[in-house]
Amino acid sequence: LCYNVVIMSSNSPQLLKGFRDFGPDKMSARLVMLEKIRKSFERFGFAPMETPVLEYEKTLTGKYGAEEKLMYRFSDQGGRAVAMRYDLTVPLARFYTTNKETLPKPFKRYAIGPVWRAENTQKGRFREFYQCDVDVVGSSSAIADAESIAAIYAALKDLGLQSVTIRINNRKIIQGILEVIGVDGKKTVSVLRFLDKIDKQGEGKVKKLLEQDGMSSGQVKDLFDYLQLSASESKGLQDNFSRLMLENKNLAEGIGELSDVLDALYGMGVTTYTVDLKLARGLDYYTGTVCEMVLSELPNFGSIAGGGRYNNLIGTVSGGKEKIPAVGMSIGIDRLIVALEDLDLIKYDSTQDVLVFNLDEDKLGTYLGIVTGLRRGGVNADLYYKTDSIDKQFKYADSKKINLAVIIGEDEIKKGIVTIKNLATRKQWSVKSNKLLEEIKKSL
Amino acid sequence: LCYNVVIMSSNSPQLLKGFRDFGPDKMSARLVMLEKIRKSFERFGFAPMETPVLEYEKTLTGKYGAEEKLMYRFSDQGGRAVAMRYDLTVPLARFYTTNKETLPKPFKRYAIGPVWRAENTQKGRFREFYQCDVDVVGSSSAIADAESIAAIYAALKDLGLQSVTIRINNRKIIQGILEVIGVDGKKTVSVLRFLDKIDKQGEGKVKKLLEQDGMSSGQVKDLFDYLQLSASESKGLQDNFSRLMLENKNLAEGIGELSDVLDALYGMGVTTYTVDLKLARGLDYYTGTVCEMVLSELPNFGSIAGGGRYNNLIGTVSGGKEKIPAVGMSIGIDRLIVALEDLDLIKYDSTQDVLVFNLDEDKLGTYLGIVTGLRRGGVNADLYYKTDSIDKQFKYADSKKINLAVIIGEDEIKKGIVTIKNLATRKQWSVKSNKLLEEIKKSL
Repeated sequence: LCYNVVIMSSNSPQLLKGFRDFGPDKMSARLVMLEKIRKSFERFGFAPMETPVLEYEKTLTGKYGAEEKLMYRFSDQGGRAVAMRYDLTVPLARFYTTNKETLPKPFKRYAIGPVWRAENTQKGRFREFYQCDVDVVGSSSAIADAESIAAIYAALKDLGLQSVTIRINNRKIIQGILEVIGVDGKKTVSVLRFLDKIDKQGEGKVKKLLEQDGMSSGQVKDLFDYLQLSASESKGLQDNFSRLMLENKNLAEGIGELSDVLDALYGMGVTTYTVDLKLARGLDYYTGTVCEMVLSELPNFGSIAGGGRYNNLIGTVSGGKEKIPAVGMSIGIDRLIVALEDLDLIKYDSTQDVLVFNLDEDKLGTYLGIVTGLRRGGVNADLYYKTDSIDKQFKYADSKKINLAVIIGEDEIKKGIVTIKNLATRKQWSVKSNKLLEEIKKSL
Repeated sequence: LCYNVVIMSSNSPQLLKGFRDFGPDKMSARLVMLEKIRKSFERFGFAPMETPVLEYEKTLTGKYGAEEKLMYRFSDQGGRAVAMRYDLTVPLARFYTTNKETLPKPFKRYAIGPVWRAENTQKGRFREFYQCDVDVVGSSSAIADAESIAAIYAALKDLGLQSVTIRINNRKIIQGILEVIGVDGKKTVSVLRFLDKIDKQGEGKVKKLLEQDGMSSGQVKDLFDYLQLSASESKGLQDNFSRLMLENKNLAEGIGELSDVLDALYGMGVTTYTVDLKLARGLDYYTGTVCEMVLSELPNFGSIAGGGRYNNLIGTVSGGKEKIPAVGMSIGIDRLIVALEDLDLIKYDSTQDVLVFNLDEDKLGTYLGIVTGLRRGGVNADLYYKTDSIDKQFKYADSKKINLAVIIGEDEIKKGIVTIKNLATRKQWSVKSNKLLEEIKKSL
């Protein structure tokens, strides 16, 4: 059966499905968050950068795997095939390729901005969402991996999150194990994709998928036995794999790199990490370190940040033969906000402090002078435009979440005073007109 | 003659024509500017808001006049006709229409973000550029017009611009004059468009265009004679038009509204305005006040901010019969930056303060501890990843515009000190290790 559903289009304009408006309350909270993230990133030596929303389509295609079909693409007025930014990493690769001569080496940048993917909105996903990325381009040092992780971790701490757990792994270890147990190297990509589904689909299901994909049940058992081996620090990890490391180059490299990252993290005072050899991450382009962060308070929420090392991507984007190592981590701010809301860590503060009431149209000059004096003094002050009932003016202050009212009537003008009312506590008091700014600043 | 020019596509990925990357230097400066603008807007009672980059195409079409062909539009994965944000005003209208029940009345919001127009890049125009808008929706008070103007003016002052001139007018005055001199009301839109070209094409040329458009040479002369009448404040303006105001309703309303806006501006301490009755502004949707700001230091630069009252737009967008008055002003940040550069008012500051040198790989733990201590103390600190020649490390610091080097060698460790070097002055001194943070904070 097939229905053609016709939805009557209303005259009133609509928001596109999967897109969101941020009104003043939400936007104020977002700005406070983004500023904290920005400052954390800058403390770790990352400098800000921004690339355009549109890129040549061919710059973006072939980088993201099957998900690429979610990219918004079209032909522009000049007939160019263009696409909307799908992440902040491939544009960074394009930027680095064209500017590398003049950039610091290594190049440490952060970027904060929206990306677009035509996701299935029934899964609660958004089609426009912000990413906050740190990346280090041009270094294969383990300190770069650790710094990217530590910068994101510090940002999450600054946002008030107390129990962030860092899950960390290195894809070379998985690849090495697959080689050791005799799985064809060409299978690595698909094995990584299946392992990435463990959190959502469970280990049993993933084991079945791996068998359907061509691994023997013995190989699957061996793989998971090896992936089970873990350790809380580099020494234990090396002990677990000491024999196999002699046998297999990828395993030796993977364990070595992971150890160095753990040591560097430790040196930076970051200790809440767990080595999880099953961690694969979704993107095809990771070549070594992979990492994600979860909240112990919200174990079922999934990851709020993730990333890894991608030593081939920039070379691929540049189309050249040069290999340019890079590593980066990203916070998904929209998921993070949901988590912060769940944990009651988000404050929907108003940007507005004071409303000057308008009680007498003949006193407009006085009101304008008062509100102007407050603004020049650095106070966020509003004036009620027209003489109106005091109830309406209280209601307006309430709708803007304004906390202080400045009230000046006949009586106040005669006495050279102003009345201040705290709209939350209902407390009301008067001060000399020339002390208003000082008093307001004290009361904020 | 017609050539088909084939440009060989290089392997290396390109930035799209008319689009820009902002590397760390430019981006740091932009962030400082945007933050100042944001704070100014908030002081005037405007709250932040953000709408999506994509809207239904039909929401945006029919609002911008002939320029609309520059809109980026396409069909999305679900077959919806969508378009990229062309300005921040029509999305505000859409937002207001769908949320008006829950919004403060009047609704004062600011928005800062990019918009997209497929402009002719040969004219030095960008296809992606930022707008910084303040708007008041739901009030026809002249205070709203004045506040929008004053908020933008305050932002420009905060950015260091000393000589901003505000040109202001009311379109009803032009319409009234046209009625008085017997020009068909249907001609108003085209007359406004021609008047908007005076700055670029000169008065002589515009007079010719008006005659070609059907006005008699006598009417053109009368129009310009009336438009020449000006005054520096509301009283003089009313005196100039006192007789005609009795005759013509639009003229009376226009002069009345303009007078009220001037008085409110004066009440807010903004006095650097010029009434310019020839000022028309480009957008079709303005219905009353129109305003633009120019820099006396850069008289030929054109306007750096502009806006006006649009009492019909929101009703049009909502498709309803209700009239919702609104007024707003906008800063074009990209043009402004060019102006600030011309006036040497822009500082391309680094976000980075300190580089911890890496002189001995065995001391990595110490270096990591030092850089972590600085970061936790709120300093933007970087560590050079690998032990390398000191020259390379100075070069790296220079490429990141880092001002202070922290140097720890064998000698320093023995003595429990650290050496600090100011890379600009070449001055070098040592402090006890536990005084480093304090000393660095003093030296920033």
